[in-house]
Amino acid sequence: MNFCSDNRYGVHPSIMEAIIAANARLTDESYCHDEGAREAEAALSAVFEKPVKAFFVLNGTGANSLALSAICPGHGGIICHEGAHISTDECNCPELFTGGAKLLTVSGAGNKITPAVMAAKLAQFVHGEHGAKPSALSLSQATELGTVYTPDEIKALSAAAHKAGMKVHMDGARFANALVWLGCTPAEMTWKSGVDVLSFGGTKNGAMILEMVVFFDEALAADFLYRRKRAGQLLSKGRYLSAQLLAYLKGGLWLENAGHSNSLAAEIAAALEGVRGVRLAAPVEANELFPILPRRLFEALQKEGAEFYEWPLDGLKPDEACARLVTSFATPRAHVEKFCALVKRLGN
Amino acid sequence: MNFCSDNRYGVHPSIMEAIIAANARLTDESYCHDEGAREAEAALSAVFEKPVKAFFVLNGTGANSLALSAICPGHGGIICHEGAHISTDECNCPELFTGGAKLLTVSGAGNKITPAVMAAKLAQFVHGEHGAKPSALSLSQATELGTVYTPDEIKALSAAAHKAGMKVHMDGARFANALVWLGCTPAEMTWKSGVDVLSFGGTKNGAMILEMVVFFDEALAADFLYRRKRAGQLLSKGRYLSAQLLAYLKGGLWLENAGHSNSLAAEIAAALEGVRGVRLAAPVEANELFPILPRRLFEALQKEGAEFYEWPLDGLKPDEACARLVTSFATPRAHVEKFCALVKRLGN
Amino acid sequence: MNFCSDNRYGVHPSIMEAIIAANARLTDESYCHDEGAREAEAALSAVFEKPVKAFFVLNGTGANSLALSAICPGHGGIICHEGAHISTDECNCPELFTGGAKLLTVSGAGNKITPAVMAAKLAQFVHGEHGAKPSALSLSQATELGTVYTPDEIKALSAAAHKAGMKVHMDGARFANALVWLGCTPAEMTWKSGVDVLSFGGTKNGAMILEMVVFFDEALAADFLYRRKRAGQLLSKGRYLSAQLLAYLKGGLWLENAGHSNSLAAEIAAALEGVRGVRLAAPVEANELFPILPRRLFEALQKEGAEFYEWPLDGLKPDEACARLVTSFATPRAHVEKFCALVKRLGN
Amino acid sequence: MNFCSDNRYGVHPSIMEAIIAANARLTDESYCHDEGAREAEAALSAVFEKPVKAFFVLNGTGANSLALSAICPGHGGIICHEGAHISTDECNCPELFTGGAKLLTVSGAGNKITPAVMAAKLAQFVHGEHGAKPSALSLSQATELGTVYTPDEIKALSAAAHKAGMKVHMDGARFANALVWLGCTPAEMTWKSGVDVLSFGGTKNGAMILEMVVFFDEALAADFLYRRKRAGQLLSKGRYLSAQLLAYLKGGLWLENAGHSNSLAAEIAAALEGVRGVRLAAPVEANELFPILPRRLFEALQKEGAEFYEWPLDGLKPDEACARLVTSFATPRAHVEKFCALVKRLGN
Repeated sequence: MNFCSDNRYGVHPSIMEAIIAANARLTDESYCHDEGAREAEAALSAVFEKPVKAFFVLNGTGANSLALSAICPGHGGIICHEGAHISTDECNCPELFTGGAKLLTVSGAGNKITPAVMAAKLAQFVHGEHGAKPSALSLSQATELGTVYTPDEIKALSAAAHKAGMKVHMDGARFANALVWLGCTPAEMTWKSGVDVLSFGGTKNGAMILEMVVFFDEALAADFLYRRKRAGQLLSKGRYLSAQLLAYLKGGLWLENAGHSNSLAAEIAAALEGVRGVRLAAPVEANELFPILPRRLFEALQKEGAEFYEWPLDGLKPDEACARLVTSFATPRAHVEKFCALVKRLGN
Repeated sequence: MNFCSDNRYGVHPSIMEAIIAANARLTDESYCHDEGAREAEAALSAVFEKPVKAFFVLNGTGANSLALSAICPGHGGIICHEGAHISTDECNCPELFTGGAKLLTVSGAGNKITPAVMAAKLAQFVHGEHGAKPSALSLSQATELGTVYTPDEIKALSAAAHKAGMKVHMDGARFANALVWLGCTPAEMTWKSGVDVLSFGGTKNGAMILEMVVFFDEALAADFLYRRKRAGQLLSKGRYLSAQLLAYLKGGLWLENAGHSNSLAAEIAAALEGVRGVRLAAPVEANELFPILPRRLFEALQKEGAEFYEWPLDGLKPDEACARLVTSFATPRAHVEKFCALVKRLGN
Repeated sequence: MNFCSDNRYGVHPSIMEAIIAANARLTDESYCHDEGAREAEAALSAVFEKPVKAFFVLNGTGANSLALSAICPGHGGIICHEGAHISTDECNCPELFTGGAKLLTVSGAGNKITPAVMAAKLAQFVHGEHGAKPSALSLSQATELGTVYTPDEIKALSAAAHKAGMKVHMDGARFANALVWLGCTPAEMTWKSGVDVLSFGGTKNGAMILEMVVFFDEALAADFLYRRKRAGQLLSKGRYLSAQLLAYLKGGLWLENAGHSNSLAAEIAAALEGVRGVRLAAPVEANELFPILPRRLFEALQKEGAEFYEWPLDGLKPDEACARLVTSFATPRAHVEKFCALVKRLGN
Repeated sequence: MNFCSDNRYGVHPSIMEAIIAANARLTDESYCHDEGAREAEAALSAVFEKPVKAFFVLNGTGANSLALSAICPGHGGIICHEGAHISTDECNCPELFTGGAKLLTVSGAGNKITPAVMAAKLAQFVHGEHGAKPSALSLSQATELGTVYTPDEIKALSAAAHKAGMKVHMDGARFANALVWLGCTPAEMTWKSGVDVLSFGGTKNGAMILEMVVFFDEALAADFLYRRKRAGQLLSKGRYLSAQLLAYLKGGLWLENAGHSNSLAAEIAAALEGVRGVRLAAPVEANELFPILPRRLFEALQKEGAEFYEWPLDGLKPDEACARLVTSFATPRAHVEKFCALVKRLGN
């Protein structure tokens, strides 16, 4: 019963097969200039209903930091939620790749930014060069607290950002999970709502290494080949990356995988409902849950073999603890059922 | 007949099997804190006959740039050959990861640095803070021109570097090829000759993604976990990296692979010998050859299906061209034989 | 009646005379290697009752950012108040000079950090390389809200920082103002309380360009000559800087100047006391005041010729405004008296 | 007899008077937003016969590095002579401010770049993202070897640079000396010959701190206020900078000062002519001379009280030494006459 993270689980068999198949070719173009890279870009253009510029990179931190480097100068500022991955979990990579840009963090329920909060932050930066120049807005979709922005919410934030002369980045490490929750199209969740550049992640959803930077505005992609190379994010044997992307999209595997993990999360959420002393720190909209539990229950569950992390959260009572539970494309349904049964048995 | 680069070829079957096997585990620790990472470090410690600190990174550029960032500050200088990969083929990644260190390039036959040349370079930096502070020496083993430093040569350079207060880095993107040529031990080629930190590469020699930063001095590895993360060089599903390393070393596969490619290169060198108008730009000591050919022959070979790049070289006659031929672990011997036959037929 | 900033005022006559005198020498050593630079270091060693390493730089932003670069790596974090100058008024210079370190901002009354707040922040960084590595604590003395840390407060914070493996920086842009308020020795306010490196500022207190980085631990100053040069903070005609420092210290001019501006601030504070609807955002301990006024009074004062800025502050009533008033070594007492009279006349 | 450097000498009396006069104003706008800064920009626009955007910075290293940061990204390359100040004497500041751009150094007689040499360098960078992206050409006018590019030479280089998609920077630390030598207009030496951005230096020619970044293309100046601030190159008490610029230009003082130092250099050159065993490393066109002397003479001159540095130069005979002699606006003519007499007496 491992709910520690979706990246604890491995690679989906179909993707592994694609990797193996890619190995059958004796030689291939290197440095992501292979035919597969072109097919990948075309496939994503189809997915997004628009010609995109798409680049393979090596991990989510690289994708986010590189995407931001294309839209924010070293003297710029990036508005993001204080709980955003770029703020809490990428060491100082965004700062490194952008040349020293500052993260302008804001707070907000469910790890979501609101237009009001963003406006208040921007109001602090009206005195010119003494502060950073607000240049980018970064939204996590799904957020690190398992919530999802609606297209309308994204639209409102993007419009405000663009009005302030900023560009909009979306951290889509769990892009598919958000998409499945919303039931909208990839286009609606991104460029139709104002997103300029996307970190498109597949690693957490069944791939081995699958992270791409996707530009909806070609002009922003100028020099990105150089950016990727100088940031150490270019792989020589690129065929193994393009193979993953193509397999990931094929037959809707990505949505199927996300559907699986989302449904398991919903199942756990349902089991938690009504258990005495249990409440959720945020609504469950993707594949992460943050239940606040009586510490007694928290520990009992771990003792019974459920693996998960404690999540730091302000405002808890002394005898409470917040758990972070993540489901994945490969989490066995049986594990979830066992966990739900445990919750019911131990929680009441 | 593809001699463009060793990274055009794929992954050795044994390594692919190890990757597949790693996928059999339902869950594993992420972020290179898995049991495999510890086994990898132990295996390398055995290989080097000394406890080492070894870290998986994501490519050769990342390995070199990160290794250098651990031994050279932003105000420092790195002595390297003007033909070194860090100078010619890593865009500005060494500069980025070190915070702006300057490459202090020197010239030298066979892309090798000599103590005299290094001393002359250092003599330019005796005026204090107006210039960069020479802090690191970086040696490519094998070099980008297919030559190999002997342990004695490394010793002499390292001693001079250490005396000048510098640390020594070895770019071992083709470490195994150099090792096989020399027939010495990994220890003799590195720390016993004064190397402080090594980029240990396996990607060009049959792996998918296998690059490690190996410290022979534990003190230099302090904070390297942070360095790796902030440079975007940390993979979440680390099990697929450790699996490669273990398979790469197992049963001497790495040496076997390098032996194959080295022997093919030697075979081609032998075929070129005595062909009219042909000479080598550098002795063939690893898996790369740089023959200077009559341009007529150069073009005829390509026309017959041999794929390779032209190499820029000063001092050629107008009707000459320098070819770069690289053999790999998977280059079919038949291709080499065909190429050698072509050389003989077309060259005389 | 200009209370906009202390840097709106010019240079004290004694300092200007010293600059003129320095010009009398036909030639002098350049690049801050002049005899005056050595005298300056000796003079500061006497002031601090300890041999210090002291370096002229070119402005407060340069001093702070360079000082921090000596104690915080690119993957590090710097704990500071959210209202600290390094956070709000130095664009991204700290990020640039440190190579991308992150400011870990905290809140606190009077712009002061407390040990409890710092401990809570540090508790967020216990998960290793995914976040920045907390490496430095930066305290402003006096703070940007005109308050002053007592030596005991500094001691408590420094002890906690050192225990956590961090170094302590003090931003002393208004060092003299804080010192005069406390009435303690420079040593007590710095190294005896645990400060490792100080930005010693004189520009705001009567100099033209007088900012120094002062190390109390010589080991931290290693390579600082290189750091200063590569950051563009080295002046060629250094004699004009050392002349200022020596004149600034001579006969206690620095304390006299600070005494003047502090006393004027106190005078204004006294005049504001008891005025209907007026309260202070923070106690007045140096040469800055932040009175919250009825907006009507705020505007009336400006209309009568008082120049000052509005200060953004949360939690004000709709008809209130917070003013920022700064007094300087050269603010005429008559201006203050006029202002106080205005306050009394208009405020009641 | 101090010929060590022009920055060993102080400040011209007229400039000092302007500084003193600026101090007479009780208050002034700070952060280079004063009326004087606007006057300075207007004055330079008149000098250059074109509206320019001009920014005060704090030293030559800052001016060059900031100017380059506006025209070269972190993944870019800057073509410059291997003897350029940005390469040899600014530690790694250009790398820092640009975010890690690489200096692509070339050689050439008299420290001058030729179109052929530049073309050969550019030919190395045709393989895309593996190398830096050539983005800027930097010319020193006058060069560090005391030579001067003619407008036609600048035109040819600029045209080639622009054709290759690069921008052109001129390091004018000794701008006035070059201008006086050429006898052309400032416009002819800069934008009319294709220069995009200029480091306009006055410190070496009689000012205290006078370095400006001057943009001939307004679009390149976008965000430069932020760039200057985040690089720590913004002075709070800007009035002392604008005062210098205005005094420097007033009545042609800058040209008069440069005329003085140039004529003294020419005088020394004339005295050296015909002295046995003496030759010049480069023609004397500004205020620097690099005579190659018999070492005996070199030492005899120093023994007699002439102060100057030895200059590293390849290809000297064992008993030769190259001296670097710099004259300044304030070098007494009597010192030059004494030196010339010494040369004649000791040299023959």
